[in-house]
Amino acid sequence: MNTIDVITAKRDGGRLSDEQVDWVVAAYTRGDVADEQMAALAMAILLNGMDDGETARWTQAMIDSGEVLALGDVGRPLVDKHSTGGVGDKITLPLAPLVAACGAAVPQLSGRGLGHTGGTLDKLESIPGWRAALSEAEIAAQLADVGAVICATTPSLAPADRKLYALRDVTGTVESIPLIASSIMSKKIAEGTDGLVLDVKVGSGAFMKTPERARALAETMVAIGGAHGLATTALLTDMSVPLGRAVGNALEVAESVDVLRGGGPTDVVELTVALAREMLALAAITDVDPAQVLASGAAYRVWERMIAAQGGDPSASLPVAAHVEEVAADRSGVLTRLDALAVGVAAWRLGAGRARKEDAVQAAAGVRLLVDVGDEVAAGQPLLELHTDTPDAVAGARAALDGGVRVADGPGPERTLVNEIVRP
Amino acid sequence: MNTIDVITAKRDGGRLSDEQVDWVVAAYTRGDVADEQMAALAMAILLNGMDDGETARWTQAMIDSGEVLALGDVGRPLVDKHSTGGVGDKITLPLAPLVAACGAAVPQLSGRGLGHTGGTLDKLESIPGWRAALSEAEIAAQLADVGAVICATTPSLAPADRKLYALRDVTGTVESIPLIASSIMSKKIAEGTDGLVLDVKVGSGAFMKTPERARALAETMVAIGGAHGLATTALLTDMSVPLGRAVGNALEVAESVDVLRGGGPTDVVELTVALAREMLALAAITDVDPAQVLASGAAYRVWERMIAAQGGDPSASLPVAAHVEEVAADRSGVLTRLDALAVGVAAWRLGAGRARKEDAVQAAAGVRLLVDVGDEVAAGQPLLELHTDTPDAVAGARAALDGGVRVADGPGPERTLVNEIVRP
Repeated sequence: MNTIDVITAKRDGGRLSDEQVDWVVAAYTRGDVADEQMAALAMAILLNGMDDGETARWTQAMIDSGEVLALGDVGRPLVDKHSTGGVGDKITLPLAPLVAACGAAVPQLSGRGLGHTGGTLDKLESIPGWRAALSEAEIAAQLADVGAVICATTPSLAPADRKLYALRDVTGTVESIPLIASSIMSKKIAEGTDGLVLDVKVGSGAFMKTPERARALAETMVAIGGAHGLATTALLTDMSVPLGRAVGNALEVAESVDVLRGGGPTDVVELTVALAREMLALAAITDVDPAQVLASGAAYRVWERMIAAQGGDPSASLPVAAHVEEVAADRSGVLTRLDALAVGVAAWRLGAGRARKEDAVQAAAGVRLLVDVGDEVAAGQPLLELHTDTPDAVAGARAALDGGVRVADGPGPERTLVNEIVRP
Repeated sequence: MNTIDVITAKRDGGRLSDEQVDWVVAAYTRGDVADEQMAALAMAILLNGMDDGETARWTQAMIDSGEVLALGDVGRPLVDKHSTGGVGDKITLPLAPLVAACGAAVPQLSGRGLGHTGGTLDKLESIPGWRAALSEAEIAAQLADVGAVICATTPSLAPADRKLYALRDVTGTVESIPLIASSIMSKKIAEGTDGLVLDVKVGSGAFMKTPERARALAETMVAIGGAHGLATTALLTDMSVPLGRAVGNALEVAESVDVLRGGGPTDVVELTVALAREMLALAAITDVDPAQVLASGAAYRVWERMIAAQGGDPSASLPVAAHVEEVAADRSGVLTRLDALAVGVAAWRLGAGRARKEDAVQAAAGVRLLVDVGDEVAAGQPLLELHTDTPDAVAGARAALDGGVRVADGPGPERTLVNEIVRP
C-alpha cells in the first residue's frame, strides 16, 4: 500500500477502500505515514467527504489501533451519553448518577475542556480529593457497585484518534463531520457500552453553529453506531444560551448538586431528564420515571457514592474565587440576549478554561448568571457575576461579553431545549 | 498572523491576502509553520485553487525567501527557456548554444531527472569532466564570454520552493497548477533573466496529460511573468511520442551534437529552431535566422566552448552501455504507436532515470529508436535498442514497453509538434 495513492484517491474525489482505510490509520498510528501526509489526507477528507461506509470503517480502524475496554458483566445494562460540548453543559454530572439510580450502569469516559467549552473532568476535579484516572478493573468494580463512573479515557483506547485529533487541531482540519463523528464514536464503541445517547449541541456556543450541520453530524454518528451494532440515539439541543446559571468548574458542580437535591435551574433539570429517558429506553428500562427518581433523592445518594468511590469528599466545601464582581444592566427592560459563546469566552478568560491542553484551569473561576433570558430587569440590576482568582482577567472577560448581553424592550427569544431526535 | 487562520481561509474557499501569503511562505521557510500545516494548506490550495493575483504573490514570496542572482551586465540580453519535462527532451542542449550564437545570453539553471522524465544536468554529466555546480561569478563570467551556461540551480535561489516541493512530493499535492506555476516561475524570476520561453509539454510522457491542463498551466505562468515584468511566452508542444530518437543521458548528448553539427532528427531540429525564434524575439534580436545559424556550425562552436568552460571535453568519447539488445517488430506494417510514457519508463528502468532524488543514474543507459512513428517496417525488423549496464533491468524495460509500441496496418498518427503559443 502506498500513502500517496491513498491521499490522491481521496483528493480526486474517490472512495477509500476498506483496505486503504485500515492501512492508512494503522500506518499513521505506528508512524509509517508521516504527520504531513495525514494532514494532506485529512484536508482532502474535509473537502471531499467520506460516505457512511468509509466513515464506519475509519471508526473501526481507530478502535483497532488500541484496546477495547473489557468491563465484563457488571450486572446491569451499560448505557452512556456524549455531548459535543457547550457552555454551562454540566449535564453529565447529574445524569450519570440519575441513570444509575434508575437501574442502568453508566461508564462515562470523559475529556477536558478546550477553548470556550468546559470539560467534565475539569469540573469534577474542583471537588477536593476526587481523581479522574481509574484502571479498567476499578471502572468495572465501580460500575458493579455504584452503577456510575465518570473518569478519564484510558490511554489504550483508540490511540489513533488521540494522535489524529492533535494533528487536526493544528492543521485546520477539525471541522470535518466524518472525522468528528469517527473520533467520538471510536472512543465510545471502544468503551464497550451497550447503548449511547448523543447530545449534539447547536448554536453560538456549540461546535455546530447551524441545525443542518448538527443534524448531519448526528445522522453520521447514528449510522456509525448502527454499523457497529451499538444502539445510538441523538438529540439536537439548544446551545445559543448557556445551560443553567453556572459556567465554570466548581460553580457547575454546585449547580449539579442543586439539581440532584431536587432544585436547580429548570433547563438543566429538563435536559437531564430528557437524556435519562432516552438512555433508559436504550437499556430497556421502561418502568422507572427518571423525574421521580431525581425528585426522590435517590440520584443524589448515587452521586455521593460515585464521588467518594473516586476519592472525593461530596460534603467538602468547593473552592471559592478570590475576586467576584458584577455586570449590571445598563437600562431597564428585558434580557433579550445572553449569548452562549460570549459567556463561554468570558468564563475561559476568567480562568475556567484553557487555550492549550497543557494549560491548568482555575477551579473557582467562571460566570454566574443572576437572571434568565426573557426576565425583566431594572437599570443597574446585577445580571451576572464574574468569578476569578486573577482580577487582571476581568477586563478581557467584560470585553468578551460586549454585545453578547443585551437589555432591550423585549420580548426575549423563544428557546426550545430539545429540537430534534435522530434515531437509527 | 495565525497559521490555522490562513489554512481555514483557503479551506473555506476564500482568497489569501497578500499579507497571509507573505507570512505563511516566510514562516514555513524558517520553520515556524510546520510541515503538516503546510501540507494541509497545499491540499486546500490544490482543491480550492488560487487566482492569478494570489499565485503571483505566492511566487514573489518564494523569490523573497532567498537571494536573486545578480548577474550584472553581461553585454547581451538575457533570455531563458524552461521545459515542463518529457521523454527524449534534450532541446536545451542544442538550444542554449544556438541562441548564444545568435547574440543573446542564456542563463539556463537546470535540474535533474525524476521518474520517467530526464534531467538536463544528468545528460551533460555523461560528458567526461563536465561539472554542473558554478558560482554566481562563474555564471556571469561565462555568460559574458561564451553567452550560454547550463548549470545547477544555486542553493540560495528560492529555498522556500525547494522545501515546499519536497513536501508536495510526499503529500499528493504536486498536481496543483498554481503551485507548479509558482515553483517554476519563482526560480526563473530569481535567476534574473529578461525574457522567458516556456515549453509546456502535453501528452502521455508529459506531466500535463491534456491540452486543457497544459493551457491552464501555460496561461498561469505567462500571467505570473507579466505580474513580475518578465516577458514570457509559452509553447504547448507534443509529448505523446518521444522527442528525437534517443532517450537516455549520453544517448541524448550524442543526438544533440548531431543536431548542432547540422544533422539529427527533424523534430528535434524543428523544436530547437522554433524555441530559438521565440527567445530571440523576446531578446529583440530580429535580424538573425536561427535555422541558418544552426546549419552554419556557429552553434556547435559555442557548444564546444560552453562544455569546455565547465571542465568538459567536447571531443571525448561518451560512455557506451555494457549491454545492448533490440526490440523487433512482431509483424509487418506501420509503426502506429510509440508511446512517450512507455519509452520513458523503459529508459528509467534501464538505469537512465531515478525514483528518488538521492539515486544515481547510468550515463550510458537508455533507449535508441531505430524507426519513426508512421514508418513502414517488416516483421522481425529492429524497432529500438535497449542500452544498459545492468542486463537484469531489460525484462522490466520490455514490460514497460508492452502495449506502448505497436505495428499495425496504419496509417500512423498525425503529429503536430507545436500546438499552440500563449503570449501575454
